[in-house]
Amino acid sequence: MKARVIVTLKNGVLDPQGKAIEGALGGLGFGDVDSVRQGKVFDVELAGADMSTAKEKLEQMCEKLLANTVIENYAIEID
Amino acid sequence: MKARVIVTLKNGVLDPQGKAIEGALGGLGFGDVDSVRQGKVFDVELAGADMSTAKEKLEQMCEKLLANTVIENYAIEID
Repeated sequence: MKARVIVTLKNGVLDPQGKAIEGALGGLGFGDVDSVRQGKVFDVELAGADMSTAKEKLEQMCEKLLANTVIENYAIEID
Repeated sequence: MKARVIVTLKNGVLDPQGKAIEGALGGLGFGDVDSVRQGKVFDVELAGADMSTAKEKLEQMCEKLLANTVIENYAIEID
């Protein structure tokens, strides 16, 4: 089973990397970019086919390793 | 207008970071993880409301800065 986990910074958390990209895009002539925030994506392949078990496991993975839940949100999409 | 750009490694490109996460998840007891590949996500806010213009600009941003198209694919989602 394939799943995608998207980890993004919570609102209000500073994102210097996103700011740098925003500046670089401005320098390349993309003046209409209002903001950029960078996050991470994990494409996870899981053995087993039970959707609810997979979702539960992915949530545990996010809580334990993939995301820092103090400053980051995560979203899980299962195909 | 809000858009999300997802940049992932092409198939066949080695992903040591993904491998490390895979190993760490195994060590945490998630034995049913077959593979992990890591990518990047950019949440971009654009001025202007024309969808096709926005898409075109985002493609240019990906080609010029956000993705290394030799080894990476990108996908653009516009809300």
